[in-house]
Amino acid sequence: VAKLQRVRERRRLGLALLEGPRVLEAAVAGGARVLEVYGLSDDRISESLARRGNAEWIPVVPAVLEMIAPTDHPRGPVGVLETPPSEVPEGDLLWLHVGDPGNAGTLVRAAAAFGLGVASAPNAADLWSPKTIRAGAGAHFATTIATDVRSLPEPHGTIATVVSGGIDSRRLAEVLDPDRPWAVLVGAEPAGLPEQVIRAADVQVTIRLGEAVESLNAGVAGSIVAYELAGWRTADEASASRD
Amino acid sequence: VAKLQRVRERRRLGLALLEGPRVLEAAVAGGARVLEVYGLSDDRISESLARRGNAEWIPVVPAVLEMIAPTDHPRGPVGVLETPPSEVPEGDLLWLHVGDPGNAGTLVRAAAAFGLGVASAPNAADLWSPKTIRAGAGAHFATTIATDVRSLPEPHGTIATVVSGGIDSRRLAEVLDPDRPWAVLVGAEPAGLPEQVIRAADVQVTIRLGEAVESLNAGVAGSIVAYELAGWRTADEASASRD
Repeated sequence: VAKLQRVRERRRLGLALLEGPRVLEAAVAGGARVLEVYGLSDDRISESLARRGNAEWIPVVPAVLEMIAPTDHPRGPVGVLETPPSEVPEGDLLWLHVGDPGNAGTLVRAAAAFGLGVASAPNAADLWSPKTIRAGAGAHFATTIATDVRSLPEPHGTIATVVSGGIDSRRLAEVLDPDRPWAVLVGAEPAGLPEQVIRAADVQVTIRLGEAVESLNAGVAGSIVAYELAGWRTADEASASRD
Repeated sequence: VAKLQRVRERRRLGLALLEGPRVLEAAVAGGARVLEVYGLSDDRISESLARRGNAEWIPVVPAVLEMIAPTDHPRGPVGVLETPPSEVPEGDLLWLHVGDPGNAGTLVRAAAAFGLGVASAPNAADLWSPKTIRAGAGAHFATTIATDVRSLPEPHGTIATVVSGGIDSRRLAEVLDPDRPWAVLVGAEPAGLPEQVIRAADVQVTIRLGEAVESLNAGVAGSIVAYELAGWRTADEASASRD
């Protein structure tokens, strides 16, 4: 179980670690396949969570919990998750090229909140790392996730987030075809998306800023574009239902 | 210098730590008072940064850098900043009640990017902690910051961000008086703002989400409201200049 802190082992085994009651609760509630739950023997809450999720409950001493948990001072529980098969979402999605696991998790959370799916590029942060899952705060089990996505098949259109020169994020509605699903490409900091990725995208979008600061945190920038996309879809559906 | 990793010492001395060339560069460019810069003796870039900022250049051995730097494997430099006097921004601002230093720094960055100032509540994360400054990515030196703010004097109006029941963030323009500066109150996760703070605010705002996820990361939520506020001000100025 301790080995699952390494990305190679997670991928080889198709497993990931869930730490803490909040994430474990979200996984069980979302119908995820939790195989085992390790917790302190007097941790009744974790034990009942394990039973609800049809996972094996394995009571351990604090030293064992410390060895298998991704953080330094775990209060338990630690769950072992069978990661769901990678599946490209059919609708709008965030396509993450970010390397920071905290930002990646924040973006999974925002995507799920705004009704979008998530895909990660080959060199991006592992969406199933403990840090990413923690920052996702349970959202991993409330959306569709694809990993290691090199290219998106039709019919997805692509929107590249760029620091300058793109269409104003507030005017996305004017250029997007509502009949296509759209993928928002979010780049890593500070370099942003690779130049050829930006050029290959159907649309470039820029969040207008003042002059004091050059760019936003990648998690914030991607979330704002997801927010605009969700608002546009909602307005579009509302106007369609009036027709 | 190592003591400045503790909030009490920072407040007692009115000093803070700047780690890394990017933040130090932003501080010097923003005209901040950098008193000393510690770096490895062959670090010419840091030395020239120190001279540009009129700071004392203090070459040190790696073991010393490791002792005074806030992170574990510093590549230098570490600067000592005289924190600017706490000053309540005159215009729109984010009033942070968040405890997580990373989220607080992300919000300082977003506030500066959207032309807003920043204030922190008494129990919030220290805006001058190394983690907050790092997440701010230089934005601390591009906006006005007030710390330990218990109440905001007139003429500021207050907008509380709430998970449900507030006015839709996309419709803020319909309720805000453009002649007042507005302060956006951002709460800590997972509890949000205290109930009496929410009730006392002039406006409650909610970012509409789908049903899959209950809330956004506090840094993302506050940034989206800042984004809406900045867009509203720009549209308001544009329409005023047409009049």
